[in-house]
Amino acid sequence: IAKEDKEFILRTLKGVKAADVSEVLEELDGEECRYILQLLDVEVGAQVIRDIDEDERGDFLELFSPEELSPFIDELDSDDAVDILQQLGVRAREQVISLLKEDEQAAYVMDLLRYGEDCAGGLMAKELIKVNLNWTVVRSIEEIRRQAEDVDKVYTLYVVDDYDKLLGRVSLKRIILASDQTLISEIYEKDILSVETFMDQEEVASIMQKYDLEVIPVVNVRGMLAGRITVDDIIDVITEKAEEDRQIMAGISEDVQEDDSVWVLSRARLPWLMIGMIGGVIAANFMGLFDGDISQIPALATFVPLITATGGNVGLQSSSLVLQSLANPSVIEDSLWKRLFKTLTVAILNGSVLAGFVFLFNWLSAGGDPQGMKIAVTVSTALFSVVMLASTMGTVTPIVMDRLKINPALASGPFITIVNDLLGLGVYFGVAHLVFY
Amino acid sequence: IAKEDKEFILRTLKGVKAADVSEVLEELDGEECRYILQLLDVEVGAQVIRDIDEDERGDFLELFSPEELSPFIDELDSDDAVDILQQLGVRAREQVISLLKEDEQAAYVMDLLRYGEDCAGGLMAKELIKVNLNWTVVRSIEEIRRQAEDVDKVYTLYVVDDYDKLLGRVSLKRIILASDQTLISEIYEKDILSVETFMDQEEVASIMQKYDLEVIPVVNVRGMLAGRITVDDIIDVITEKAEEDRQIMAGISEDVQEDDSVWVLSRARLPWLMIGMIGGVIAANFMGLFDGDISQIPALATFVPLITATGGNVGLQSSSLVLQSLANPSVIEDSLWKRLFKTLTVAILNGSVLAGFVFLFNWLSAGGDPQGMKIAVTVSTALFSVVMLASTMGTVTPIVMDRLKINPALASGPFITIVNDLLGLGVYFGVAHLVFY
Repeated sequence: IAKEDKEFILRTLKGVKAADVSEVLEELDGEECRYILQLLDVEVGAQVIRDIDEDERGDFLELFSPEELSPFIDELDSDDAVDILQQLGVRAREQVISLLKEDEQAAYVMDLLRYGEDCAGGLMAKELIKVNLNWTVVRSIEEIRRQAEDVDKVYTLYVVDDYDKLLGRVSLKRIILASDQTLISEIYEKDILSVETFMDQEEVASIMQKYDLEVIPVVNVRGMLAGRITVDDIIDVITEKAEEDRQIMAGISEDVQEDDSVWVLSRARLPWLMIGMIGGVIAANFMGLFDGDISQIPALATFVPLITATGGNVGLQSSSLVLQSLANPSVIEDSLWKRLFKTLTVAILNGSVLAGFVFLFNWLSAGGDPQGMKIAVTVSTALFSVVMLASTMGTVTPIVMDRLKINPALASGPFITIVNDLLGLGVYFGVAHLVFY
Repeated sequence: IAKEDKEFILRTLKGVKAADVSEVLEELDGEECRYILQLLDVEVGAQVIRDIDEDERGDFLELFSPEELSPFIDELDSDDAVDILQQLGVRAREQVISLLKEDEQAAYVMDLLRYGEDCAGGLMAKELIKVNLNWTVVRSIEEIRRQAEDVDKVYTLYVVDDYDKLLGRVSLKRIILASDQTLISEIYEKDILSVETFMDQEEVASIMQKYDLEVIPVVNVRGMLAGRITVDDIIDVITEKAEEDRQIMAGISEDVQEDDSVWVLSRARLPWLMIGMIGGVIAANFMGLFDGDISQIPALATFVPLITATGGNVGLQSSSLVLQSLANPSVIEDSLWKRLFKTLTVAILNGSVLAGFVFLFNWLSAGGDPQGMKIAVTVSTALFSVVMLASTMGTVTPIVMDRLKINPALASGPFITIVNDLLGLGVYFGVAHLVFY
């Protein structure tokens, strides 16, 4: 497509949305992207860069010199600008900032760079409209008009005092309807939700979701209005979190995508496979202790996959239910003991059905043979115990991890399977020993 | 809390947001909820009912007679009203609708009830502001003022023709700045994205997310403006989808929560456990064919957990990467063959590392014993083959399911583990037979 035919490219891209151009650019090689971006209007180009997938953008940005990047950065909202700057090296970042033409944008960006990416401060944009408590309606309208130039979507007007402390909000409608000399302090609403700069982004997301907010103001520790977070950023937080949890559950240790390189994909997958492997070797050594039993009663070994698979399934089910309720905390939280009690009741029900089913099957296929009956008893008893044990592990592990501030999704991944495999084998051969000797 | 002390309750709930009241009510019993709701202002009460968790709301609604419910329904936006009505029995639903005081709301609700819950029509609200192409600015302002009474958040003004066909949008600012007799057709923007009533809700969500939209108009098959979908509904769609996928991956077959009853939880968990159980019994029978081998070489059996666990892990990793890219389709999609080729390259890399590691371990612990060496060769060869096979299965299954319109997340659940367990055992004992005989 991109072979110097300037006219054609411009005509084609004319009506297309920035987000679509970004997708096309992700598929082209570096020089072609660079060429197309330079043909575009700066404002559109800035949006295109913003909409490029974050994983691809790192390499992409390296194609540009600080001089080429800064005009695009000038055009973006401060939060998007910072996201891009954070992907640059420190040196390039400083150069781009020093080249920004708009002083206000430079100040915003430097302020936002201080915050970690995962907290409210890292999500917020500085662009917002605020009015002072002591301004009259006339003055407010003038200031709003001035401030509105930089703000794409206004949403709410925030009311602050002389020290920039957030006090409330006021609607444009109320300002317009009030008489010219009315003070803002007479007409504003005090009822406003805000979050603090250091609040975790997932907590911000759940607050905005709960109250159906489109925008929420962010205040610093002293209650001063620092910025605002809009709903589009929150949607990204929710999507990322879901993707991250899914990868952890699947035993993938880096944030990768199917179209990453073979090398990156292998590296992301190997750690948990190796841990699983070590678990398997431990299991092999453990079973080696029962060599004698196995060679006498080989049928014992045939039920090993059944025991380990059931332990894994039950553990996964339990842990993912706990995860889900950790993600949607309720006002009145059940205690660990109450949860455990409930899990175990469910485990008794399910365990009985499964053990009964397997007993029936083994009993029928044993056909009166005493060794077959012993195996039937062993497998059913072990199965029931494994269901109980795996339920307990699956419930306790994520809760403990959550209290230790480790991502509890880890407890739903290969970890729980490996632990349950080992526990299951232990229980199974323990029971077998009791039944046979 | 709720023991007749009307004054106290009202005072306590005064400043509290509706979403918080809902959470408190979820923890109280039926009669108490009913009592509190009747104390509240109708408008607040309506919001409280709207914000109650959907799973809890079914039982909750049964406490109220149609006469008691209809005033709340009158207050809600049409999309929320329909969500609630859909939880009632057909008879109660019809009664509530016939009792609605606002004719417009009744018409909206009846219109929306026609659509399935999972499509754009089921998400949209009827409340929106539209202006006719041929209206003058003066007439438009008058109409906007009238329509705005029912619309909480305006977002965008839609432009339609005489047949209600969606043509574009116009900003309030432009209308206000234009002279009184200007026609809307002279000032509106034609550039507008819309979705059709029958579009799947997840598709709507990904469009709104991609273009960072706060609201999107919905048109019917004839292009007529039918309603609009706002971003808060989209957030719910995204969250629900993530939760659903997680449950499917965990082998839970109904939409349950940790605080559901023991009975519901057991029922949701049993189906996949039973299927796993059947898989385990098949595995046991299959291994039974190798009884002789196992009793002669019991060490062979000790590596069964290693083989099955690795197969399960690899399959899960592969399928979840495919799932992820199915959820975020790119413009240029790789073909099935290209994907498979890549997966297999990764599998060769990972499989070699794992097989090498296990071979080294077995070789060291064999210490020159010829039978130990044979086992080392068997386990490594089988492990490598299992990694290749499980990668292929994990890649192909979700893609095939997606084409067959089955939710591909199913391929990431216990299903893949069971299939891989069986395949793994087959490969392992096959290789063993080749090596030993």
